[in-house]
Amino acid sequence: MIRVVILGFGNVGQHLHKIFHETKGVNVIQGYTRNTTETTTKAGTPLISKISEIDSSADVYIVAIPDDAIKGFTKELKLKDKLVVHTSGGVAMNTISKKHHRGIFYPLQTFSKNTEVDFKIIPICIEAEKENDLKLLRKLGELISNKVVDINSSERAQIHLAAVFVNNFVNELYHISEDILKEKSLDFELLKPLISETAKKIETLSPSKAQTGPANRGDIVTIEKHLSMIEAELQEKVYMTLTRSILKRK
Amino acid sequence: MIRVVILGFGNVGQHLHKIFHETKGVNVIQGYTRNTTETTTKAGTPLISKISEIDSSADVYIVAIPDDAIKGFTKELKLKDKLVVHTSGGVAMNTISKKHHRGIFYPLQTFSKNTEVDFKIIPICIEAEKENDLKLLRKLGELISNKVVDINSSERAQIHLAAVFVNNFVNELYHISEDILKEKSLDFELLKPLISETAKKIETLSPSKAQTGPANRGDIVTIEKHLSMIEAELQEKVYMTLTRSILKRK
Ligand SMILES: NC(=O)c1ccc[n+]([C@@H]2O[C@H](COP(=O)([O-])OP(=O)(O)OC[C@H]3O[C@@H](n4cnc5c(N)ncnc54)[C@H](OP(=O)(O)O)[C@@H]3O)[C@@H](O)[C@H]2O)c1
Ligand SMILES: NC(=O)c1ccc[n+]([C@@H]2O[C@H](COP(=O)([O-])OP(=O)(O)OC[C@H]3O[C@@H](n4cnc5c(N)ncnc54)[C@H](OP(=O)(O)O)[C@@H]3O)[C@@H](O)[C@H]2O)c1
Repeated sequence: MIRVVILGFGNVGQHLHKIFHETKGVNVIQGYTRNTTETTTKAGTPLISKISEIDSSADVYIVAIPDDAIKGFTKELKLKDKLVVHTSGGVAMNTISKKHHRGIFYPLQTFSKNTEVDFKIIPICIEAEKENDLKLLRKLGELISNKVVDINSSERAQIHLAAVFVNNFVNELYHISEDILKEKSLDFELLKPLISETAKKIETLSPSKAQTGPANRGDIVTIEKHLSMIEAELQEKVYMTLTRSILKRK
Repeated sequence: MIRVVILGFGNVGQHLHKIFHETKGVNVIQGYTRNTTETTTKAGTPLISKISEIDSSADVYIVAIPDDAIKGFTKELKLKDKLVVHTSGGVAMNTISKKHHRGIFYPLQTFSKNTEVDFKIIPICIEAEKENDLKLLRKLGELISNKVVDINSSERAQIHLAAVFVNNFVNELYHISEDILKEKSLDFELLKPLISETAKKIETLSPSKAQTGPANRGDIVTIEKHLSMIEAELQEKVYMTLTRSILKRK
């Protein structure tokens, strides 16, 4: 049995709590959240809101708080020689206070409070200073996911950068296209089958094979027509930059 | 029974042929493709390769050939007072030779030869010069899809522009992220659950609600770290432009 304390009950903290609670071989002995009137979660896990009350007998402490709070928060922890990991894609392992055994348990997925995710397919990127800790994190990861990978901090930063492109930037393109449709009072719903198929295609085709459209076939007439239709300067910049990026590959 | 001739047997032509063949109430009486050694499709539809052989008794002629060939090709057709439609998002209806009754039958989806699609959820954007023709196109559309919409040429151009953002540009972001991972010999497979979840989120959340990440939370430290990690100039431009686009919304 792996005994876990989850520190921070936001998107990631709550999703981890839920999946660990459903999983044999792991026990969340405590959750920490700064402001709570409850003393347990709905699932019965004890909740605390004071750092001084943190149980010192767990195997691993998972810090799931905002990136910029990790450094200060882990410094304040009163633990001794304990494995403390964070869940961030963008933060180096050595940001965790060096008084702990340090590690990473980064689930490569986007979490929101009200959406269900299937942990089995989520890559869990792990890292640890000590071989034994890495083993424990691998064991913990494999209890919930089929894809646990050893990733060092510099690789993880690269993955996080790539993730910004396929997650935040892709979502911004959805947003721009919604804006473009709104201008003519057209319904964004119309694009949803295309959005879903575009993502689905990439499961079996490489991005290079999946590409189509005006830039890909060098159709300058259509590109110029589109540019003449766009009014907002930033939309035009986005159109130009991504069109150039596609043209450059030819 | 609606009798159809399909002119052009590429991605769209073949997908339409397949779904019409499976659908009651519509009969593909002929397919036209320039180079064929077969005289029928596998499904038994007669195939021809000469314009002079086109059956003049169909209710509708669907031209599914490259955008820039539509004008010349429809001029050559020897039909008289027949409904001739094209399937393009980016081409105005009046590009079709004016000797025909003109119309549009634009399936708003990305088609490739070897991927199956569910026509029921694909929006079919229709337009026609004559009210009767519009009725026929609506009837034909409703046989295969639950979402048939009246869209004029200027609205369709706007939809096509928006589609370029969520399809071609999104795919280019997948491509860039693959490039970024490759630099450190990391596997693009890692990002696939995130890609799929990002698209899935948009089914129930607006792009505005779904957004997360460094730009969205104004995390300049991470943005600068990312920019320092990017080597290719065009990748940097894409990062900057989309980051600005997100920051501008705050
Ligand atoms: N969301 C994602 O999609 C995702 C995916 C992968 C990794 N991550 C990483 O996971 C970590 C947590 O992200 P999240 O999305 O779960 O964040 P979140 O939803 O904002 O939750 C963070 C929680 O941390 C607590 N907190 C905030 N500031 C704190 C501070 N100064 N000291 C102590 N606790 C504090 C807050 O809980 P209380 O106010 O109740 O204390 C909050 O609920 C981050 O490192 C993030 O990069 C996020
Ligand atoms: N692919 C998509 O995702 C998609 C989605 C919605 C709408 N559309 C629109 O549908 C239309 C067809 O696109 P597609 O993707 O099916 O194209 P495609 O796969 O390139 O097929 C077009 C077919 O047209 C024939 N053709 C090519 N040049 C021709 C010419 N000059 N004269 C006569 N026939 C010619 C070719 O067949 P032969 O060589 O055998 O004659 C070819 O198989 C376009 O207007 C496009 O904008 C495409």
